[in-house]
Amino acid sequence: VSLPRRSRLSGEDRLLAWLRSRYALPHLGDDAAMLALDRPFAVTTDSQIEGVHFPPGLDPGRIARRLLAINLSDLAAMGAEPRFAFLALAVPEGFAHRRFFRALLAACRPHGVELAGGDLARSPRLTYAVLTLLGTLPSRGRWLRRDGARPGQRLWLGGTVGESAAGQLLAAMGTAGKLESSEGVGTESPAIRRAARHALDRHLEPRPQLDLGRWLGRRKAGGALDVSDGLARDLHRLCRASGCGATVDGAALPLAPRFAELCRALDRDPLELALAGGEDYVLLFTLPPGLAPPQEFCCTEIGSIDAGTKVRCTRAGRTRALPPLGWDHLGM
Amino acid sequence: VSLPRRSRLSGEDRLLAWLRSRYALPHLGDDAAMLALDRPFAVTTDSQIEGVHFPPGLDPGRIARRLLAINLSDLAAMGAEPRFAFLALAVPEGFAHRRFFRALLAACRPHGVELAGGDLARSPRLTYAVLTLLGTLPSRGRWLRRDGARPGQRLWLGGTVGESAAGQLLAAMGTAGKLESSEGVGTESPAIRRAARHALDRHLEPRPQLDLGRWLGRRKAGGALDVSDGLARDLHRLCRASGCGATVDGAALPLAPRFAELCRALDRDPLELALAGGEDYVLLFTLPPGLAPPQEFCCTEIGSIDAGTKVRCTRAGRTRALPPLGWDHLGM
Repeated sequence: VSLPRRSRLSGEDRLLAWLRSRYALPHLGDDAAMLALDRPFAVTTDSQIEGVHFPPGLDPGRIARRLLAINLSDLAAMGAEPRFAFLALAVPEGFAHRRFFRALLAACRPHGVELAGGDLARSPRLTYAVLTLLGTLPSRGRWLRRDGARPGQRLWLGGTVGESAAGQLLAAMGTAGKLESSEGVGTESPAIRRAARHALDRHLEPRPQLDLGRWLGRRKAGGALDVSDGLARDLHRLCRASGCGATVDGAALPLAPRFAELCRALDRDPLELALAGGEDYVLLFTLPPGLAPPQEFCCTEIGSIDAGTKVRCTRAGRTRALPPLGWDHLGM
Repeated sequence: VSLPRRSRLSGEDRLLAWLRSRYALPHLGDDAAMLALDRPFAVTTDSQIEGVHFPPGLDPGRIARRLLAINLSDLAAMGAEPRFAFLALAVPEGFAHRRFFRALLAACRPHGVELAGGDLARSPRLTYAVLTLLGTLPSRGRWLRRDGARPGQRLWLGGTVGESAAGQLLAAMGTAGKLESSEGVGTESPAIRRAARHALDRHLEPRPQLDLGRWLGRRKAGGALDVSDGLARDLHRLCRASGCGATVDGAALPLAPRFAELCRALDRDPLELALAGGEDYVLLFTLPPGLAPPQEFCCTEIGSIDAGTKVRCTRAGRTRALPPLGWDHLGM
């Protein structure tokens, strides 16, 4: 049974003073951030837990960037303009807070995100970080919703799938430190080692597709969400919300360079990782036939939205049911 | 190295379906909650961590109510009207999710709070819960700010202090289960056992002072915050933000019935717990002389706001510096 510690200015107050002296953070410091917005906004919250979402011992800067990226991806999936962030951070003794905040605020800047509030706590063992993001509806934009898919629309992906899952498998094979120097990849070929480093990087630092989301919000997009729990599971969610079915062309799925070779080295089926791996953080969306995103977004048409409720996948000329494979956060 | 699990509908999706079938939660289900507010609003975020903020093994319903209460207390300290909640919940296997959500939503109802978003995750060991609350500025209200105290104003407390810290010491002496049946209190007297149960309850289920906060927002209140890290530390924060000093009358501090006896049984100094204990979740605020809150709020005048920057406490006729005792979340 221990009583609280004493010090002139608490560590929390000192960290806050340090933050406010170095960054323009006008909303920090009171019991809550006072805001006013004259347009609709979207709010999302997402967690990053050591040993669950990222490997133990990961650099605090990378944790911060990953935390921001996966939250931004949710706003991208709404077509929103990111504005304000609220952080809850619980870390064990000795955590490099300033390193974390420097990286977080540096990553916030290009997206126009302001850290407007937060809560700091001591965690008995692991690092837990939760970010809540508030983003506004752009002028001339509409919200992208997951219930907007309609039969006859084409199904699109904003980038490659499966690579992040390969990166997660690599991360689980060794400590983060070892992996950063690309040991522990389990292969001799320099090309596959490069692919492995790329997969690890893709897993650790996802790139939220905010520009694509805003483009979709200005166009006649149908339904949209970001692929976080696996393409198959998230496609089922899109179809369930929209009351429709879909057919995916397995051969059309966009894969990273040398992905098949990397999967062979990892003893995994590429299509399985692509369909069920998760944490891809690319947008899955539908568009009317004949409309395609600009080439710069590197999107791929992967199938169609159908009447009915069946979700199917075509592979080697055969069409079969696609079960909702993927990550289950409760594992029930 | 394990791959994601498979099931027809994920545990997360099933929980979400269960929630939406039983409660009116129109904003749940997309990547982010889509909102629009025509008035200013305040956002706060706060964490509850097993073994840090509440004893291991605490009933999920109590965890939910405590999580909501400490967040509501931040909105109370702003004079805000609670509106929307966003939950991040990470729990070990076997956690009773539905019990948690039933209690959370039951506790939200009387405050008009709608659960509008969230994130569920598996935690390797401990329960981590983070709630972000959004509250609006009431019509005819002003924000209560911590930088609004001015010399000459009177200093007030919204309720007793120290009791929650006594409850925390009791909680740390045994498991929550034992304590609920009032064993492990370490005393024979029924009156002290009652005081102990009351202290434990006060610690586990704080009562946010929302009505008092709104009353203050409609009056000429000066500065305000909620006492979460100890009266002394939070008074220093109020004074630092407002650029003033304060003198507390130690004899005026409101204490719970039989608090001195309970402290004797716990071998603690009552004034120390009252000044430095923390987690009281009562409002600390200033008012111009001659203005007092209605009796129903049970507030107590405990001192004055002074020119200068000194924070002092008068006890037994002597006035001494009051150091910023209290809880430090980083313990640095």
